[in-house]
Amino acid sequence: MSRFAEPQDPAFRALDSSLAYDRRLWPYDVAQSRAHAGMLAAQGIIGADDRDALHAALEKVELELAEDRFPFADDDVDIHMAIERRVTEIAGPAGAKLHTARSRNDQVATDVALFVRDEARSAHDRIRGLQAALVERAEEHLDWHLPGYTHLQRGQPVYLAHHLLAYFWMLERDCARFSFACDAADALPLGAGALAGVNFATDRRMVADALGFTRIAPNSLDAVSNRDFVLDFLGAAATALTHLSRLGGELVLWSTAEFGFVVLPDAWTSGSSLMPQKKNPDAAELMRAKAPRVVGSLMSLYGVMHGLPLTYNKDMQEDKEPLFDAVDTLELCLAAATGMVAGARFDRDRMAAAASDELIAATDLADLLVRNGMPFREAHGVVGGLVRDAVEGGQPLREVATARLGQDAAAVLEQASWLESKVSEGGTSSERVREQLEAARALL
Amino acid sequence: MSRFAEPQDPAFRALDSSLAYDRRLWPYDVAQSRAHAGMLAAQGIIGADDRDALHAALEKVELELAEDRFPFADDDVDIHMAIERRVTEIAGPAGAKLHTARSRNDQVATDVALFVRDEARSAHDRIRGLQAALVERAEEHLDWHLPGYTHLQRGQPVYLAHHLLAYFWMLERDCARFSFACDAADALPLGAGALAGVNFATDRRMVADALGFTRIAPNSLDAVSNRDFVLDFLGAAATALTHLSRLGGELVLWSTAEFGFVVLPDAWTSGSSLMPQKKNPDAAELMRAKAPRVVGSLMSLYGVMHGLPLTYNKDMQEDKEPLFDAVDTLELCLAAATGMVAGARFDRDRMAAAASDELIAATDLADLLVRNGMPFREAHGVVGGLVRDAVEGGQPLREVATARLGQDAAAVLEQASWLESKVSEGGTSSERVREQLEAARALL
Amino acid sequence: MSRFAEPQDPAFRALDSSLAYDRRLWPYDVAQSRAHAGMLAAQGIIGADDRDALHAALEKVELELAEDRFPFADDDVDIHMAIERRVTEIAGPAGAKLHTARSRNDQVATDVALFVRDEARSAHDRIRGLQAALVERAEEHLDWHLPGYTHLQRGQPVYLAHHLLAYFWMLERDCARFSFACDAADALPLGAGALAGVNFATDRRMVADALGFTRIAPNSLDAVSNRDFVLDFLGAAATALTHLSRLGGELVLWSTAEFGFVVLPDAWTSGSSLMPQKKNPDAAELMRAKAPRVVGSLMSLYGVMHGLPLTYNKDMQEDKEPLFDAVDTLELCLAAATGMVAGARFDRDRMAAAASDELIAATDLADLLVRNGMPFREAHGVVGGLVRDAVEGGQPLREVATARLGQDAAAVLEQASWLESKVSEGGTSSERVREQLEAARALL
Amino acid sequence: MSRFAEPQDPAFRALDSSLAYDRRLWPYDVAQSRAHAGMLAAQGIIGADDRDALHAALEKVELELAEDRFPFADDDVDIHMAIERRVTEIAGPAGAKLHTARSRNDQVATDVALFVRDEARSAHDRIRGLQAALVERAEEHLDWHLPGYTHLQRGQPVYLAHHLLAYFWMLERDCARFSFACDAADALPLGAGALAGVNFATDRRMVADALGFTRIAPNSLDAVSNRDFVLDFLGAAATALTHLSRLGGELVLWSTAEFGFVVLPDAWTSGSSLMPQKKNPDAAELMRAKAPRVVGSLMSLYGVMHGLPLTYNKDMQEDKEPLFDAVDTLELCLAAATGMVAGARFDRDRMAAAASDELIAATDLADLLVRNGMPFREAHGVVGGLVRDAVEGGQPLREVATARLGQDAAAVLEQASWLESKVSEGGTSSERVREQLEAARALL
Repeated sequence: MSRFAEPQDPAFRALDSSLAYDRRLWPYDVAQSRAHAGMLAAQGIIGADDRDALHAALEKVELELAEDRFPFADDDVDIHMAIERRVTEIAGPAGAKLHTARSRNDQVATDVALFVRDEARSAHDRIRGLQAALVERAEEHLDWHLPGYTHLQRGQPVYLAHHLLAYFWMLERDCARFSFACDAADALPLGAGALAGVNFATDRRMVADALGFTRIAPNSLDAVSNRDFVLDFLGAAATALTHLSRLGGELVLWSTAEFGFVVLPDAWTSGSSLMPQKKNPDAAELMRAKAPRVVGSLMSLYGVMHGLPLTYNKDMQEDKEPLFDAVDTLELCLAAATGMVAGARFDRDRMAAAASDELIAATDLADLLVRNGMPFREAHGVVGGLVRDAVEGGQPLREVATARLGQDAAAVLEQASWLESKVSEGGTSSERVREQLEAARALL
Repeated sequence: MSRFAEPQDPAFRALDSSLAYDRRLWPYDVAQSRAHAGMLAAQGIIGADDRDALHAALEKVELELAEDRFPFADDDVDIHMAIERRVTEIAGPAGAKLHTARSRNDQVATDVALFVRDEARSAHDRIRGLQAALVERAEEHLDWHLPGYTHLQRGQPVYLAHHLLAYFWMLERDCARFSFACDAADALPLGAGALAGVNFATDRRMVADALGFTRIAPNSLDAVSNRDFVLDFLGAAATALTHLSRLGGELVLWSTAEFGFVVLPDAWTSGSSLMPQKKNPDAAELMRAKAPRVVGSLMSLYGVMHGLPLTYNKDMQEDKEPLFDAVDTLELCLAAATGMVAGARFDRDRMAAAASDELIAATDLADLLVRNGMPFREAHGVVGGLVRDAVEGGQPLREVATARLGQDAAAVLEQASWLESKVSEGGTSSERVREQLEAARALL
Repeated sequence: MSRFAEPQDPAFRALDSSLAYDRRLWPYDVAQSRAHAGMLAAQGIIGADDRDALHAALEKVELELAEDRFPFADDDVDIHMAIERRVTEIAGPAGAKLHTARSRNDQVATDVALFVRDEARSAHDRIRGLQAALVERAEEHLDWHLPGYTHLQRGQPVYLAHHLLAYFWMLERDCARFSFACDAADALPLGAGALAGVNFATDRRMVADALGFTRIAPNSLDAVSNRDFVLDFLGAAATALTHLSRLGGELVLWSTAEFGFVVLPDAWTSGSSLMPQKKNPDAAELMRAKAPRVVGSLMSLYGVMHGLPLTYNKDMQEDKEPLFDAVDTLELCLAAATGMVAGARFDRDRMAAAASDELIAATDLADLLVRNGMPFREAHGVVGGLVRDAVEGGQPLREVATARLGQDAAAVLEQASWLESKVSEGGTSSERVREQLEAARALL
Repeated sequence: MSRFAEPQDPAFRALDSSLAYDRRLWPYDVAQSRAHAGMLAAQGIIGADDRDALHAALEKVELELAEDRFPFADDDVDIHMAIERRVTEIAGPAGAKLHTARSRNDQVATDVALFVRDEARSAHDRIRGLQAALVERAEEHLDWHLPGYTHLQRGQPVYLAHHLLAYFWMLERDCARFSFACDAADALPLGAGALAGVNFATDRRMVADALGFTRIAPNSLDAVSNRDFVLDFLGAAATALTHLSRLGGELVLWSTAEFGFVVLPDAWTSGSSLMPQKKNPDAAELMRAKAPRVVGSLMSLYGVMHGLPLTYNKDMQEDKEPLFDAVDTLELCLAAATGMVAGARFDRDRMAAAASDELIAATDLADLLVRNGMPFREAHGVVGGLVRDAVEGGQPLREVATARLGQDAAAVLEQASWLESKVSEGGTSSERVREQLEAARALL
């Protein structure tokens, strides 16, 4: 570019260049250039021969990139300029026509939108895989029981199937969020030019059709300064990873000696460099640890966009590394979650033992009094007193309760009834869990 | 609660109590209690007389709260317990039945979901108001031109209407985001009980209908540990405020002496305590400054949820203050944006002068060469050289260009053509802007 | 201020006013006004009579504020203008001289610096209190053992004193961080005026001395646009709360039925609205949950300051709410930590039982082989094999090990030796823990 | 490790392995292994011949790594295991002794502490370089004036030297922050073993001396679970980059056509792919954009550490990428800042023209009235009225002021006096700026 008299400082090049990471956008850059050239020719802006030369060169470039033998040059500052340079080397003067009626501003936005669209779909598919694993394991453990916890204190017993399906529904919402991000990326930026539109009678609908966009970005200024779809993707990923962090945290907890509810597969654990006995839930820990990473990335892009004047500012180059990292992180964590869910060996006895703690049925005792006519708040107080007496007196609750409330209390304290009495829709009784499983299967 | 032998530490009460902020949930808590009592009676879990007594007490409580004369007690730890206590004072034993088949876990989740649903709708409506103001001002400034900027350098001229509408489309996406949050909050948690469902044959659909929920949370464990809808609302607010921060930043910039594109209404500015001449764009600055506040809140809730085991954990009480603050912040900022957009006085001459800088038409010159058959990349280089010569030689670009490229160049450098030549869809030519305005109006 | 023709919009006032929160700065505002007036008179900028009138009025105002009967006016936009207005009501024309050679810009910065300095000192003192509680409990539990965990898997046994002291050292670093923040706030901004210095020969050293500042901000532009000391305080608070979140997380974990290492005092726990048996570690959970809140606040202030041009921008008003909230949050959490550490009842038997798991001594077995001449990495492999055989064969490690390695192995698997063999400095052997306790006590 | 029966899943390896990024720790890993081996021999834990073999192997490994010909193996999971493996290949059985009395837990913490210490020092030095450039440019522009801004409105004129030095003092505080981080990293973790100390009579002081640590981490549990020093480094980097973002933002602003205060060197700018006339301040924009990146990293590490139980958890592996990225980002941005500060060409005329706006002297006019006996607040109102009349009447302030206030006003409105009258310490008068420059030079 001959506007400049002096060369760039090497440190500036190091700061400015995005090639190290944006090269992964190449499939999208090639696709959009192909569509753009096709449209330029269809509109008579370039000749059919130019288009053919461009398409041939793009095909060659595509192959070079796919086979990892693309000849990058020292002064390729990003993948877009590298491809245009290479196309021009191959196609000659026709190559120099590729950037007609296009700016890097709308070009980059288009590549990133295509990338987000594809990755949102992939994330959706991978989540579906994890959901399927959860459904499968839920079916295998329909009648296993374990304590449900609030405040990490044993609250009421639930079936393991019910617990596993809780994650199914979190992930179902994640699917909706990735669909939203996919839709947000579904408006073609290309054709906005640098910011004001272009001096040629282009046909943006044609390009949109070729690239599979449903809509066209309606305002050129907004088109080149919009990164909402990246924020939407990062937000979806942050929430999904936060869900996975909860699953990871539970696997860590359940695989402690103290809980002992699960044995993780060797394939997803590792040892200690010093302590020969250790079998550590590294994958579960990392799955837990990755959420803040992507939350940090989301926050960083909000920070970058904050207060920026229209339209494109170079700051926005900082959208890519957070996005790429979130894509990779999510993929790894979904694989880990799916692998661990599929391979986990649950310990029926340990779970059952923990769930047989009588105190866990205190609510049922209160509800018994309710059925017998006592207002709930009063019943809650009565049973609270029984619990206190039992704990302080070192007596089983059953004894204290039966002494005071009679044989009905004993019946309520039969374990068999604790889960099956939770008959409300969405509750843990077998019938309700089966309903839920069907609903889940219907969504897959 | 008689399970405890010792009283709570006052410092614990200070940490634990949420009444100072969750009292604003009272309308939702009253509404859900009303619906819950109605359902309990319909299902025969309480008597019709109990229901009537509860409904009468709730009506009284509602009035006390609405008129700010509700008698809070020292040991009301949150609005839910305060209302139940007061209902019981009024209704006697019937009051003590209100919490039958309900836990604070599903109760709180339900209040918050109702709140999010309402506030997402309000945000949507307020955004529509700002969009309407933008459309109105765009119509008033259809043929005013100003520079469009990239990198805050003058790029190409655009119509002010086009620039204002860029914000319209950002906000349109915000509407979609709030609709998503509204939908995310549209599944009834109530009926999940503490975590496992309840011991009574409740009718959750009936409660959902009464409260206007479309769906029922399908898994009781998930229902009480889900705060996704709060994250969704915070994410929508963070993005909307980031958009407003860009508008605020531009208003600050445009009202500098150096730009001078806009004079903000006195009603939205203030003076200096020391410097008598100052007229400061405080509202625009604050509008810019608020985005990080809500991004911080979003991040804090991600942090809170990170790694939490199922189901409810007290940590989740930290969802409310960020949410309430985001609601209030967004409302203030949308009012400020609407007020400033409506009242801003643009300076046609300053904008036009800035947009008449010849260099701004360099792309058009290159495109002229393209039309004459020169490949774009080559034309870009030729014009880059002309610009450099003009800048270094202190000559107008027009002279340098005409000398080298002939009279066609002079015609291209006529200002009149710069905007109207941007004929591509979404571009700044008058026809395209009018199309855009129509599309915008159609959405309002 | 007569520069403006139109009144401010009520919505602008709502956005702009900081009085609702900055009123807590009043003691600092009064103090600095007193010092400022004293200096103005000493330099002959105002008369001694003016100073006396100002000092008298300030004393009155101070009393009104302290006794919560200060008459706020509807258009008091912040505490600074409110105090100046009131001083002028009381002192007449002398009051109107108070703002001579001062701007709100340097005034606010000075108030906030004084606040940070004081609160950093208070935080330091409160942390010392928690450290003292830890030392006391450590002394009480010198020879109790429990498993030390890595990856939440039992690693090697440690003394409870050793574990408690780990928190002592984290907190010791927090003290250093608050000292840093205190020092960062120890440069007087006042005297910088709006931004350029003032038109009077003021004596900033005199004001600094009166207010207890060690240094004077050396550059007026920087003085009014610097909020580093707030970032430093927030950073210190975020790290301290992250430490407390770890303590909170452990208390939650240890008070589960599954671990059972600790019983929290009733005074710091609460019950369930539904489940009568529950005793929930709410305070520990909230202590855990508060770290992200303050991290979010830290991040929001970074976001606010990001990219701001010099000098003061209204955005910076957003420094106060995060700061105040961090101060209050930290105070509550330190009280909770201190209360729970002091009141926790540890369960010697549960801890000892968990720590008696033979596998925990696998490293010691490997080290035995090392002492007998086997390279460590090889020994690690040998013992790993023994562990696998024991686990898979359902045999005690002792049996497998003795069979293969002889009676020396049996001796190593005597529990008594496991802790006392950790003789390295900082290790868990009794002597080393006693050394540590002495060092800790020396710091208090 | 023979504890495991099944191999690891390739997806687990991909998630688990840190070699791709932690290999940059190799110099520290080699250094600590050398020191560790030396100490083991000195304490008689290994033989002198083993030590010599280890030292020889480590030297060879060091060379291989320095020359980028180290033979990594497929199952090297991190740099630590890779080096130990390679040392063992070279040294045979002696190599297998290297990990005696050491765990990866204390090993990693030590490497990272060494890294932080070195990089904190480097950051300090690089900041000093930027400060030197600022001092140099300040000296060159001692008597150039430009407007000082508040709210981005012209406030009062200042010397460019004064403005440049404002950044000097921000950076001075950054130096203090990096010194703090350096000190925080100055306690040796090695010797803590996995968590409890080691079974050998090691000499940690000897290792500390060899590696240049001043202190020894006093508690083994804390030593392996502490990442405060990384947080401290990230916090220092986040604040420094926030300062640089303000400088970057000002360079972007000042290089607009509208401000025109600075021309950035060609070496730190770039062109547009479409618009031939553009010269974009990319480096300044990126310098602005990088702060949120590192703030995001800081936040992510807070998120990772949040609520983690003692001691080491795999989550903590997530400390490294944020740290390394912050180091590299800071280095690039400091280079950019130094290059741009050194090469910027300021435009004396544009600055002077902007600073000659009469309104900028309104405060001086008010202070004139103060000197003549009018209370400041009243004088502020009088001058506010004059400004309004001048602005509304389209008259120069000088005329309005002289008509009402007499010739004294005319003298005050002489530009010459505006800057030199700011005589207060730290103000912009020449004498005060020279004082400041001396103080700055004394610090370099």
